[in-house]
Amino acid sequence: MFGFSPAEGAGSMTKQLCSHLRAHIGNGTLPPGLRLPPTRRAAQELGIARNIVIEVYEQLTAEGYLITRIGAGTYVANSIELRSPKSVPPQPAPVPAPVPNRHAGDWIDFDAGTPDLRHFPRKLWSQYMRDVTANEPEHVLDYGDCRGSGALRETLVRYLFRVKGIRCTPDQIIVTSGTSEGCLLLASAFGDMFRAVYVEEPTIGFIADIFKTLHYTVHPVEVDAQGMNVGQIDPSAPQGLLILTPSHQYPTGSILSIQRRQQAVKLAETYGHYILEDDYNSEFRHKGSPIPPLHLLAPDRVIYAGTFSKTLSPAIKLGFLIVPPHLVDRILQTKADLNLSASSLTQMALSRFIEDGHFDRHIHKMRAIYRKRRIFLKEQVQRLFGGETQVLGDEAGMHVQLVFRPEVYGSVDWKGCEAFGVRLSSFDEYARRQGRHPGKIVLGYGKLTEADIAEGLRKLHAFVQSVKSV
Amino acid sequence: MFGFSPAEGAGSMTKQLCSHLRAHIGNGTLPPGLRLPPTRRAAQELGIARNIVIEVYEQLTAEGYLITRIGAGTYVANSIELRSPKSVPPQPAPVPAPVPNRHAGDWIDFDAGTPDLRHFPRKLWSQYMRDVTANEPEHVLDYGDCRGSGALRETLVRYLFRVKGIRCTPDQIIVTSGTSEGCLLLASAFGDMFRAVYVEEPTIGFIADIFKTLHYTVHPVEVDAQGMNVGQIDPSAPQGLLILTPSHQYPTGSILSIQRRQQAVKLAETYGHYILEDDYNSEFRHKGSPIPPLHLLAPDRVIYAGTFSKTLSPAIKLGFLIVPPHLVDRILQTKADLNLSASSLTQMALSRFIEDGHFDRHIHKMRAIYRKRRIFLKEQVQRLFGGETQVLGDEAGMHVQLVFRPEVYGSVDWKGCEAFGVRLSSFDEYARRQGRHPGKIVLGYGKLTEADIAEGLRKLHAFVQSVKSV
Repeated sequence: MFGFSPAEGAGSMTKQLCSHLRAHIGNGTLPPGLRLPPTRRAAQELGIARNIVIEVYEQLTAEGYLITRIGAGTYVANSIELRSPKSVPPQPAPVPAPVPNRHAGDWIDFDAGTPDLRHFPRKLWSQYMRDVTANEPEHVLDYGDCRGSGALRETLVRYLFRVKGIRCTPDQIIVTSGTSEGCLLLASAFGDMFRAVYVEEPTIGFIADIFKTLHYTVHPVEVDAQGMNVGQIDPSAPQGLLILTPSHQYPTGSILSIQRRQQAVKLAETYGHYILEDDYNSEFRHKGSPIPPLHLLAPDRVIYAGTFSKTLSPAIKLGFLIVPPHLVDRILQTKADLNLSASSLTQMALSRFIEDGHFDRHIHKMRAIYRKRRIFLKEQVQRLFGGETQVLGDEAGMHVQLVFRPEVYGSVDWKGCEAFGVRLSSFDEYARRQGRHPGKIVLGYGKLTEADIAEGLRKLHAFVQSVKSV
Repeated sequence: MFGFSPAEGAGSMTKQLCSHLRAHIGNGTLPPGLRLPPTRRAAQELGIARNIVIEVYEQLTAEGYLITRIGAGTYVANSIELRSPKSVPPQPAPVPAPVPNRHAGDWIDFDAGTPDLRHFPRKLWSQYMRDVTANEPEHVLDYGDCRGSGALRETLVRYLFRVKGIRCTPDQIIVTSGTSEGCLLLASAFGDMFRAVYVEEPTIGFIADIFKTLHYTVHPVEVDAQGMNVGQIDPSAPQGLLILTPSHQYPTGSILSIQRRQQAVKLAETYGHYILEDDYNSEFRHKGSPIPPLHLLAPDRVIYAGTFSKTLSPAIKLGFLIVPPHLVDRILQTKADLNLSASSLTQMALSRFIEDGHFDRHIHKMRAIYRKRRIFLKEQVQRLFGGETQVLGDEAGMHVQLVFRPEVYGSVDWKGCEAFGVRLSSFDEYARRQGRHPGKIVLGYGKLTEADIAEGLRKLHAFVQSVKSV
């Protein structure tokens, strides 16, 4: 009956009969209006249990292929278009892209994007996650508060005051799944106020890309040894958001000076701009004490963005914004509209982890590690390159700027390093305007051991020798 | 000297002296150009170690407050604007908002948004998370592949074929942190192609809100017992995205019939629309087998969105899109521009959890639980309300539609239930056009025990009696 013959290993009888009928209704073999045999008879003829036929009829009625009229039987429905569903030929699963492993082989990669994850306190963190997952009330498994968990926001208020001197209330804190989500949120929230962002030039592109994707105009503003040259922003420039990394600019390593900070705040207050303080790694200051956040100067104009991607791990997926009180409602409404929330589980684990002092201990440990690497790197650069290059912007974080004498190295294509087994970035890779940073490169050392650093610099030295001798 | 006297418990000497000098340079007591005493003398006069003074001078030089000229000493810098940083009065931490607890007190809440988290396999899940966190190579702590982890994407390909008959390649799968992020991504990616979305009316608002926030025009299209009435979309309507929940519409519970599916696909193919198939809970089908996804009919026009928020927990923060091959590059480029990524750790844990069969087992268990509750709910409704109401849309998921006779209950304000200790939603809460769904309410039963359901329905019955007798 129906030309149906079940096949071994092709799924349950119900499933096979359903597919078979769908296909034959679909191609017109079983035409609209056709009355199907009663379930009892169909079951007999097909040699299968009657309740399977009942199930199949019910299923196809729910899907619209069949119509059941009480007391009158089951019919093929009308207005089903005759065509077989497009068959997609089964495709072999392609070999997955290799997991990015920047230390593969003999490569040395002076990438600066991630912390040294070898020192992430895996065991401790997984204990916190396990405890929270296993023992907390149900609500940690639920969507949770759009602002972020109350416990984490209170923890952050205490942490920010203790470590950075920031005074804010839990209501001003909005937990995000990282700085990118924070920027996306701000770009959506500010869209009907203004459509301009002022970004450091050169800088890492991802924040500008987010705003550009959300249809903002991106205005690059030059960075020098004192950070963004805020004075270049014209008073007649459109209202917008100044995006600054005051504590350690990437790639220059500059610290925004007090004069520039005051200028930025005055500009913002006078012309209605806001400032995004992207504080991605001020925890790792190597000389003296941490630079006070720009937020302290103008808590009404500055939105402070913090992240745990650089201090703990990007896989934690947590960051936060501190928002001026008068902007809280606007930004929260946008967050609710976009339905963005971070994992309640992870938030609770992080709150406990900080409260128990483990976060401070981890920062302390990593700062010591990065400091040591920084000193080692500077010594090696001095030893290998002498007066050919200068190390700048090394007071914080996990990267330094190297400036090779432009009269000798100004036209070097630094991509050529790769042939020598070392990867690094020239300033031009971070610049919207090319050719303005001759001889300048950036070395991230956060992920590299001293042995890696030494080897990487030897390889860089070999490259530099090769271009010099050309 | 400098009027400085350290205070007990106010931080390190370095920190105190820095703050003191910042304040006095800031208010003009130490004017621009003033030469500071050499470090040795300052140390003597202040009665502190010389290296503290050196540290302080270096710190304030880095911040721009001081200028050091080699061989000439240290001076207060120019062009610092004289004003004390705005002091924000310390504010008492406000009492945090109470954690949303929808079962608090005697309330019965027929909310349909979350699964029954009491049955989430906490212990097992935390073991998977712990194993991955403790033992995987470093890259699981890193940002990871923008498309999502290769392992998870391959697992999903196998799962989707096995359970839903979907054929796709890992390259077509884009892991998201949930359907909201998926929609945000699509809204950004499609923005320069079209700016219209067609949404079910009534429906839950969050997806439309996301598109509206990203400046799309939202066109509501009526839903009836066969799902969205696709025929209402005019051929002259602007190109856009049809957002459908084919397997179980919310709040009606309708299943999109085969005729409507074909109509939607034809419309999309003819006029260049795309279709978003929001498959939020087809796993929980209670009669017959799962309805084949709309994706099977038109893999080139349908973007399929899956989520683990309803099957496991919203705190997992994982979902995915299946994208037509010709759209993969566009959507991935947007994802890279927005710098959105899901936690590598959680992705790896989920991949293993599925491969080891635990996900299927959990679905199987929850389906049995929801089925039992659904039967119980229907029996109770029949027993209490008899012919006053009809249960519709109960074939899948965790909610049903109740239709009270409109001639008696058409003008009831269902908010009044709350006075009787029960929370539920009327269709009007999900409708853009009010007053078109008299007597219709939705009951989510996924989170409620049989005892809760019985009590909730008794309370609803008491309310219904009270409005009837008015």
